[in-house]
Amino acid sequence: MTDATDTPAKGALHRVRQSANRAAYDRDTLYAVLDACKVGHVALVDNGRPISIPSAVARIGDHLYLHGSNSSRLFKALADGCDVCVSVCELDALVVARSAMHCSMNYRSAVVFGRGERVAEEDKVALLDAFTEHLIPGSTGHFRPHLAKEIKATTLIRIGLDEASAKVRTGGPVDDKDDIELPIWAGVVPIITLQGAAIDADDLADGVCAPAFTLNGS
Amino acid sequence: MTDATDTPAKGALHRVRQSANRAAYDRDTLYAVLDACKVGHVALVDNGRPISIPSAVARIGDHLYLHGSNSSRLFKALADGCDVCVSVCELDALVVARSAMHCSMNYRSAVVFGRGERVAEEDKVALLDAFTEHLIPGSTGHFRPHLAKEIKATTLIRIGLDEASAKVRTGGPVDDKDDIELPIWAGVVPIITLQGAAIDADDLADGVCAPAFTLNGS
Repeated sequence: MTDATDTPAKGALHRVRQSANRAAYDRDTLYAVLDACKVGHVALVDNGRPISIPSAVARIGDHLYLHGSNSSRLFKALADGCDVCVSVCELDALVVARSAMHCSMNYRSAVVFGRGERVAEEDKVALLDAFTEHLIPGSTGHFRPHLAKEIKATTLIRIGLDEASAKVRTGGPVDDKDDIELPIWAGVVPIITLQGAAIDADDLADGVCAPAFTLNGS
Repeated sequence: MTDATDTPAKGALHRVRQSANRAAYDRDTLYAVLDACKVGHVALVDNGRPISIPSAVARIGDHLYLHGSNSSRLFKALADGCDVCVSVCELDALVVARSAMHCSMNYRSAVVFGRGERVAEEDKVALLDAFTEHLIPGSTGHFRPHLAKEIKATTLIRIGLDEASAKVRTGGPVDDKDDIELPIWAGVVPIITLQGAAIDADDLADGVCAPAFTLNGS
């Protein structure tokens, strides 16, 4: 991944083939798409078969991070440096055309190819804190201090972003020219994601109020 | 997939290993999760490496359907019956605990293992219509008739749901017992997805209004 917007060489894993006009290879677009997503779908090869597992993700610096239990088979394989592909997608709108087959969706997606790399013990705390801040924006400083055993029990994996691409669709329907005059509605129905009102835990200590970050838009 | 809620045999691909207490193997739960999702992440093995591509999905009857262009490499591989794994995930809430490492997310997810199977030409129209109805609920009957060439140009793939599982997290944070009394807020921040007000296409014919289905909740 570079600041350039050049299409990767033919045959490169991360070169977008379908609707290639929607592909983006620049860092700003890729990072903006990744930063909008809290869940990625982590694909591995397991005994020759594909497996895809949803997992929390966070882009921090020039890597995508995943965290899991030391006992997880998925995270053991990632820590061993296996090939991995992570995709993310945020749905932004339903695109309604005059014909069903021209209907579409507006979305922001990204696909990251790479190998898992285990993060060193001494780097984990700062990165796990950044991970939590990504998932729950504004929450830094809210929590009780980590316990050493919690950090030890967590595997933190990172994947480089050199082989990654974004794909984004925006705008209205693209109908056949002959269909434009038809008395059929066409347009875009936005999909909007909001944070609802915070719900206190049942066992919350008396007098504790929901902090400001629970009011953030998401 | 059966109506039973039995855990699949050890070693079964779709047996959930992590947080197995959140797994569900009954048809009702699986179908409800799939029906809530419009985008799946389709994992294949490509030259020995994993690849994951976001794609529109629809559960119709006892299959999960994907559609794409005949020219798509992904859909050619699926039509050839390759092994595939499709995962979906809807994020329902951020779960804020007293400690960062006990934070979580509420979600509904599913993982489907199987092989792609190309849908026969004569079955495509009805299934593509059901697919569109899933993506844009209430839109049946809205569109101009299909053109034969549009149907012909589309590959419709289905995957059986016999090797599939759902995984759902609901409820509040689960903190360490020693942390409950701390004066730190804990609870759930719901993530809510809504349809926004419909936006007319720029080239909409005069006097055409947005239909009722654009007002549906999603």
